[in-house]
Amino acid sequence: MRLSNYFLPTLRDNPKDAQIVSHRYMLRAGMIQQASAGIYSWLPMGVRVLKKIEQIVREEQNNAGAQEILMPTIQSADLWKESGRYEDYGKELLRITDRHERDMLYGPTNEEQITEIFRSHVKSYRTLPLSLYHIQWKFRDEVRPRFGVMRGREFLMKDAYSFDLNYDDAIKSYNKMFIAYLKTYARMGLKVIPMAADSGPIGGDMSHEFIILADTGESEVFYQKNWFEVNKLDENVDIEGDLQPLVNSYLSCYAATDEKHDLDNCSLAAEDLVATRGIEVGHIFYFGTKYSDALRARVAGKDGNESSVHMGSYGVGVSRLVGAIIEANHDEKGIVWPESVTPFRVGLVNIKIDDRECLEASENFYTKLQLAGVDVLYDDRDERTGAKLANMDLIGLPWQIIVGPRGLKAGVVEIKNRRTGVLEECSIDQVMTKFRD
Amino acid sequence: MRLSNYFLPTLRDNPKDAQIVSHRYMLRAGMIQQASAGIYSWLPMGVRVLKKIEQIVREEQNNAGAQEILMPTIQSADLWKESGRYEDYGKELLRITDRHERDMLYGPTNEEQITEIFRSHVKSYRTLPLSLYHIQWKFRDEVRPRFGVMRGREFLMKDAYSFDLNYDDAIKSYNKMFIAYLKTYARMGLKVIPMAADSGPIGGDMSHEFIILADTGESEVFYQKNWFEVNKLDENVDIEGDLQPLVNSYLSCYAATDEKHDLDNCSLAAEDLVATRGIEVGHIFYFGTKYSDALRARVAGKDGNESSVHMGSYGVGVSRLVGAIIEANHDEKGIVWPESVTPFRVGLVNIKIDDRECLEASENFYTKLQLAGVDVLYDDRDERTGAKLANMDLIGLPWQIIVGPRGLKAGVVEIKNRRTGVLEECSIDQVMTKFRD
Repeated sequence: MRLSNYFLPTLRDNPKDAQIVSHRYMLRAGMIQQASAGIYSWLPMGVRVLKKIEQIVREEQNNAGAQEILMPTIQSADLWKESGRYEDYGKELLRITDRHERDMLYGPTNEEQITEIFRSHVKSYRTLPLSLYHIQWKFRDEVRPRFGVMRGREFLMKDAYSFDLNYDDAIKSYNKMFIAYLKTYARMGLKVIPMAADSGPIGGDMSHEFIILADTGESEVFYQKNWFEVNKLDENVDIEGDLQPLVNSYLSCYAATDEKHDLDNCSLAAEDLVATRGIEVGHIFYFGTKYSDALRARVAGKDGNESSVHMGSYGVGVSRLVGAIIEANHDEKGIVWPESVTPFRVGLVNIKIDDRECLEASENFYTKLQLAGVDVLYDDRDERTGAKLANMDLIGLPWQIIVGPRGLKAGVVEIKNRRTGVLEECSIDQVMTKFRD
Repeated sequence: MRLSNYFLPTLRDNPKDAQIVSHRYMLRAGMIQQASAGIYSWLPMGVRVLKKIEQIVREEQNNAGAQEILMPTIQSADLWKESGRYEDYGKELLRITDRHERDMLYGPTNEEQITEIFRSHVKSYRTLPLSLYHIQWKFRDEVRPRFGVMRGREFLMKDAYSFDLNYDDAIKSYNKMFIAYLKTYARMGLKVIPMAADSGPIGGDMSHEFIILADTGESEVFYQKNWFEVNKLDENVDIEGDLQPLVNSYLSCYAATDEKHDLDNCSLAAEDLVATRGIEVGHIFYFGTKYSDALRARVAGKDGNESSVHMGSYGVGVSRLVGAIIEANHDEKGIVWPESVTPFRVGLVNIKIDDRECLEASENFYTKLQLAGVDVLYDDRDERTGAKLANMDLIGLPWQIIVGPRGLKAGVVEIKNRRTGVLEECSIDQVMTKFRD
């Protein structure tokens, strides 16, 4: 993509009202624009990251055997009256009346709707286990939306739902998602700790939040100092195998959100306990038959007897992750994207566009990199060198190729690793070898 | 995908209330489920088709130089009051009041919101031409939703918006989209005629609808009998070139919706004019400065003088296309998917699962086809042969591989082309050669 044609409205100065770094950088890097309180438009650079995160989430859901569906954003209030949540949910539920005066709502979550789909079609244990997920916009009418996409009102969520015949099978489904979540976050380069958590308005007995450690986190969290040394995810873990020992080993390391933290139950010495802040990027629940009882989603077992299906639900905040990844990956100059979610892999900067050799070499790189399948953003604009380089640092692509007249005379260009800041001189052939893989 | 694990709730009988064939088949083939009036959940088979159509639309928008963004579903009413459409739009606009008593709405279209994004960032002709698009759910509160996803209330639409300095440039952008649309529909195997149309609530002077011919179409259309012979799209047309002659040649062939049809202005002999019904699958508009005047979206020209930017908007009904493609591709047994949008390319049917050789051969095909990158749906269920074959015909995958004991004894399986109905005997090697490409 040529930057001269690309809609990338970066800002030089920090926008007022943006309190946290991810919000500031997303605005400054031209990724989002506020539409109204807690509601954002995603500009081209933002959409690219959002779609990459969405795709990683999708692939790991598919790998875990969940099947993608897509439920609508607008739901009838009837099912919510059946489950009892229509009154319980409070003012965060955006209630809507349609032209025929029917009560509707903008779904903040989909337990009722998925249970309705399930009960319409599944009558027998033979269809179980079943896991369905969708990636869809949700709305929660937060009283005070803030922190950009981290606590917005309209947000993109992946929510999965599992259906099993009994408790034991339901825990197997829960464990599968538990590990799938760890794999998902690992692919995004995030260090995430699963922590026992309260279930809130979803309900149920067991629930874990997946927490990124970040000073700007919304809640206080506590964990065993050597947590990440003890728990190393094996990427090749067999998701179809018995995952209970693995899940147990994760959970045997102390980690808790402030709601669940209890010094009396924590046997760690003070120096082995870390208190810091965290950002929730996922939340999974086992709630048994709460919704299947209320909505009469029942299946016949092997013996022919009917019972309520056991359910769990599993959420990943897809749009929130864009902010959370920035909270965990930035410096004073801007964003530092992990390769797996970066909007472009390489930024190509021609620092002297009126120099014929610079122009030729840059155009040549641009063509060759594209042919090699490398996503490249090419700054071909007539701007000051300092502004162009600062802009590249701000938007945070992992690699920069800097083409200048002095280097070209010696047959080299500079390659900058955005994360380490290390500059290296490369010949043209070396550049292509480095990125063509 | 193994059908024994796949959530594909097909129905043997025609559902009541489904008046048109696409609605009936989408319900029967387990693609969708009604959530409430005019609002549908997409089940796994439906999502696959929806995503394929979305991706074709996306690629052709990108090829035409449009950049993907993503605007939210919920908009503040303020901008609509500024444009004057808040009162004009009538009851189809879903009006919402949030917890702070602010007037919001579920966007039925996004002219105001995109103009707000544009005016926040673009001040100079140097950023032009600019085309932005998004693929997002919309809501129109139809008084009488019907025909399944063809006239739903919540629907997925691609809407693009072009910004140009003056009329001439705006027409160039319009022509680009005109041709991009023809390429988009051609990739879906659809025969589409662009027809002059009324602008309706979008407004403006020039507008074309893209119409699929189908007996079940919602409106009457008229066209020159030899239209498709005269107009053959060259897939390699240069979208950056001068497209006016090409657009003129399309438009010089008579075609009009009933709103625009005028026998007095139609010089065709009666026998050269076809009157039939059509389904609108796209609608493009040039409306000049209607919104940029109202919202003061102004740019400085080369001479430094400011003027209102010239705009167009361009819609494709993505979810509606799923129904429209079925209207144009079905027979009495079910759907007949074009290869480009089919949920799976191949259906593999083991007609005798308790026969060891059938099982081995089927499992072998399943593994090999997957390794070769072929999307295959494998019917490994314990069902009657007749039911399995009828089911495959209903869901309409382009190719069926039918594995039975008699054929295997002779070293062959049957390959069925769903569209032609032709059955052909193939050896195992021939099968793999046929699909591995």
